[in-house]
Amino acid sequence: MTDATDRTRRPFVLADAIDFLARTPATLDALLSGLPLPWIAANEGGETWGAFDIVGHLIHGERTDWLPRAKIILEHGEARPFEPFDRLAQFEISTGRTMESLLDEFAGLRRRNLKELRALELTPADLDRVGRHPAFGPVTMRQLLATWTAHDLDHVMQIARVLGRQYSDEVGPWRAYLRIISGTQG
Amino acid sequence: MTDATDRTRRPFVLADAIDFLARTPATLDALLSGLPLPWIAANEGGETWGAFDIVGHLIHGERTDWLPRAKIILEHGEARPFEPFDRLAQFEISTGRTMESLLDEFAGLRRRNLKELRALELTPADLDRVGRHPAFGPVTMRQLLATWTAHDLDHVMQIARVLGRQYSDEVGPWRAYLRIISGTQG
Repeated sequence: MTDATDRTRRPFVLADAIDFLARTPATLDALLSGLPLPWIAANEGGETWGAFDIVGHLIHGERTDWLPRAKIILEHGEARPFEPFDRLAQFEISTGRTMESLLDEFAGLRRRNLKELRALELTPADLDRVGRHPAFGPVTMRQLLATWTAHDLDHVMQIARVLGRQYSDEVGPWRAYLRIISGTQG
Repeated sequence: MTDATDRTRRPFVLADAIDFLARTPATLDALLSGLPLPWIAANEGGETWGAFDIVGHLIHGERTDWLPRAKIILEHGEARPFEPFDRLAQFEISTGRTMESLLDEFAGLRRRNLKELRALELTPADLDRVGRHPAFGPVTMRQLLATWTAHDLDHVMQIARVLGRQYSDEVGPWRAYLRIISGTQG
């Protein structure tokens, strides 16, 4: 940690990634379990997603995206492209469900997927193995697992933002100080 | 919820705000407790904050900002401006501490402050009471408490972003899909 640049990037380490992936269900429970319905349905306008949609999207990822793609890389390498990911499947998954039911399903799927991921005992050579993404071509196992991890944090960020912005008017003049509301980053 | 606009704003309700404020310690524990030191120190470059700094900043807010300002409004109204908030105090608070010690202190302070906030039994008339911010003048109790809540979510968002961006290079071509990394919102 001798210069600032060192603090902006971490190399991918499988144990770190599994640790982060294991944290997400508890993070979502703490943020969302028991929230009143208007907060769960709150969004950022138009076709943007709310917390309910986002948890449905994470469930769909556990079912069809991350671990299934890892297995395709191990079994078929570049020979078989991944199935394209359906970015609207959560609307079907979520219909008629409660947030608690979605959170429980997500936690169960994540637990099982991480158990299976650990059981694969991926070696450094496995992390270098290459699969084929349907849109942008060759990707490594390492990139897939790094993306799974960053994707979780992306949606945690999104949930906090969707909720916090609901008070955009209520905060009054503090609006300018709150980056979650003003939209500036940093 | 008859049109999209309805879903982008929630009116301030004291019980909602207290519920969100009570969730933050568990959210931070889930995201941060036990993380290896390089992740805790990770930041977004330059003078930006990492998770360790952010939790120190939240502790400082519990000690000197939110509830003390609410009490100034109740006792002095606009006659006595709030103390300016020291946005760098966390560097002193955090020196030599572990993340676990900071998380525990934050959880204890938050618990006590919410107990005290509930005991104030603020009425709708109290929420309309006006205090004086040292920089931008008149603010209501309602705006102060809405800001306390949105401020928590702002920093949860920031922590998720700081952590997720550490894999900006490791995700390879997925970089373009991950808004946490590409920096786009929505």
